[in-house]
Amino acid sequence: MKLINLDHISACPLMPEVKEVMIDAINSDLHNPSSQHKAGEEAAERLEIARENVRTLVGAKDLKEIVFTSGGTESVNHAIKGAAMANRNKGNHIVTTNIEHNAVIRSLKRLSGEGFKVTSLPVDETGRVNPDDVAKAITEKTILVSIMHSNNETGTIQPIKEIGAITRQKKVLFHSDAVDSVGVVPIDVDDLNVDLLSFGSNRFYGPHGVGGLYIRKGTRIFPLLEGGVQEHNKRGGTENLIGIIGMGKAAELALKDMATRSSYLQSLKDHLVASLPDYLDEYLINTNLEHSLPEMLNISLKYIEGESVMLMLDGDDIAVSTKSACATGSLRASHVLMSLGLSHADAQGTIVISWGIDNSKEDIDQFLASIAESTKVLRDMSPLSRDNPGSD
Amino acid sequence: MKLINLDHISACPLMPEVKEVMIDAINSDLHNPSSQHKAGEEAAERLEIARENVRTLVGAKDLKEIVFTSGGTESVNHAIKGAAMANRNKGNHIVTTNIEHNAVIRSLKRLSGEGFKVTSLPVDETGRVNPDDVAKAITEKTILVSIMHSNNETGTIQPIKEIGAITRQKKVLFHSDAVDSVGVVPIDVDDLNVDLLSFGSNRFYGPHGVGGLYIRKGTRIFPLLEGGVQEHNKRGGTENLIGIIGMGKAAELALKDMATRSSYLQSLKDHLVASLPDYLDEYLINTNLEHSLPEMLNISLKYIEGESVMLMLDGDDIAVSTKSACATGSLRASHVLMSLGLSHADAQGTIVISWGIDNSKEDIDQFLASIAESTKVLRDMSPLSRDNPGSD
Repeated sequence: MKLINLDHISACPLMPEVKEVMIDAINSDLHNPSSQHKAGEEAAERLEIARENVRTLVGAKDLKEIVFTSGGTESVNHAIKGAAMANRNKGNHIVTTNIEHNAVIRSLKRLSGEGFKVTSLPVDETGRVNPDDVAKAITEKTILVSIMHSNNETGTIQPIKEIGAITRQKKVLFHSDAVDSVGVVPIDVDDLNVDLLSFGSNRFYGPHGVGGLYIRKGTRIFPLLEGGVQEHNKRGGTENLIGIIGMGKAAELALKDMATRSSYLQSLKDHLVASLPDYLDEYLINTNLEHSLPEMLNISLKYIEGESVMLMLDGDDIAVSTKSACATGSLRASHVLMSLGLSHADAQGTIVISWGIDNSKEDIDQFLASIAESTKVLRDMSPLSRDNPGSD
Repeated sequence: MKLINLDHISACPLMPEVKEVMIDAINSDLHNPSSQHKAGEEAAERLEIARENVRTLVGAKDLKEIVFTSGGTESVNHAIKGAAMANRNKGNHIVTTNIEHNAVIRSLKRLSGEGFKVTSLPVDETGRVNPDDVAKAITEKTILVSIMHSNNETGTIQPIKEIGAITRQKKVLFHSDAVDSVGVVPIDVDDLNVDLLSFGSNRFYGPHGVGGLYIRKGTRIFPLLEGGVQEHNKRGGTENLIGIIGMGKAAELALKDMATRSSYLQSLKDHLVASLPDYLDEYLINTNLEHSLPEMLNISLKYIEGESVMLMLDGDDIAVSTKSACATGSLRASHVLMSLGLSHADAQGTIVISWGIDNSKEDIDQFLASIAESTKVLRDMSPLSRDNPGSD
């Protein structure tokens, strides 16, 4: 039986064209892009084609503003630790939100141990931060604001442009973890007024373990990986050329097809949201439907565990997730959902549905039938549910 | 005309079996190894097969001691910065040598700015450090010794086992940058007594941009890339699964064929060294022939620039390098060669010849003919050479 992947936030399949260029790269025995002989030059040309595609995707002006990394996590660590350490002489205060990815949270925690002070802002019950709160949080010691573009558990999009106008006016560096947005929704680093922007290739159907960091020209930042002079001396280490070539092609396709993809993905979302009441009761929608990615929905099912639902859906060959795959193994309730004001029990009843351009309306329908059945079975077993007159 | 690659230190071609598993991985639409559903489990299984092959290659006892990285540079940065920062409460002194790769040098330079003191030991004129010097350099404040296994410009191998016995006895952490050795010569982390060992996949005919760090169980070290709980919480970020699968296969082959490969590579080296006097005069061999990798030779040609020789050889479709590809663009003479006591002029006349299992004896002969001709042309043009009665 074919697996229905409604866990695109953990893994998007590679586009056929991406597979093709990666396989061609594998078969081409490309040399080292930093070597100065002919063989090196051919490798360097392919690297720069990928860089051009990625540059265009995020709206960067200069090729040198794009640094290839081993994925979103490296990009976030590089941006936050690199900018903080390089600007320590100006101040030690950083502003962020309560719903960031663990790459941001843990990078900031590390910096806290180095004498940095972090202000973490709350979000409203729809999951959005108020730009006024950002403005108020910035002091004369603030050197960096780091706020994600869209959330990896809910898909809710933050008012990055409004925040960027504030940080620009206050002359504070602004980093946005846009790993779940780049290649999915239009991103323009100048329009958003960001100085640093992290992204990963898999979210737009490129390979895992490849990503990039946009570094606005003139931004003071230390490298995270130091060694050779690769990537304009901003990131040492010979590049993962095969992966980067794949990301370049994925970026080209994502930009070309963004409107078509987006409207298709949104149609699946509309169908899913409209159909939910026919299949489920007593659920919460944790995604801000007005401001969110077109391919993701986060719901909480009352009285049951999301983990159990996920496993039952897996039995029906439907993949969903309960939280970030990066947090697998952690038993704690999602900090994102707790920040929205959910109770611990409701947060534990969460599943994240994330579809892609390879899904059909029928996939959504199968999911709905399966989750309705799973929820019924689990609620029948749940002591919480039996004691609750509101459940059936 | 076929290119003769005598610049394997910059890029080894992928083994056919490595290409095959990578292409299969691309076509398999593997999910995220951290996902808990069936699709995630299949990806996780492939990841662990690769880990087992790499574990065996370096002689590690436990799978959890292998952390996958984006290559040698990340591994080195992780080892040095991670171990130093995690052991700061014990001391602030680090011992290294004058001939390390820039990943080590620049990581240590960064730590110097954070209050760490670095003792950098000289090497003898054959390029080797004296273990007694290491013993003498260790103080009660020493928390880390970082010494490379083999040098990336000369191929000279250090007495790591002897140094490991000292660091073990003195209870100081020992990191070895073994990027150019792992998969080429036998490496056993227990025999060498290292606590941290960096390696990269391309040196053993796996893809670029993939590598690993051996972290001995119980070693106190911070992650460099922080975020998710991947890699037993030692390195956040979804893994570059396609690349890692390639590295796993390359590791399996490297271990199985090590003796055969090594004896073949050494036969090419013996042939090259024995033939040099028939083609060239007034050259220096900068590689320690007794203690070095079987596939690399570093020579300096008097009165001329290595860069010019490299470009002329490129015209004959023969790729060599003048120094580490990581240092391309830097105009300075190699710090490695200056540490051997070479004059600035001799260091500038250096070329690095690094062959592989895909080279033949005829490739070496073509190289010899081409370099003899290039050297003659360049010396005829060189004012230094004309003024020197020793040149012809």
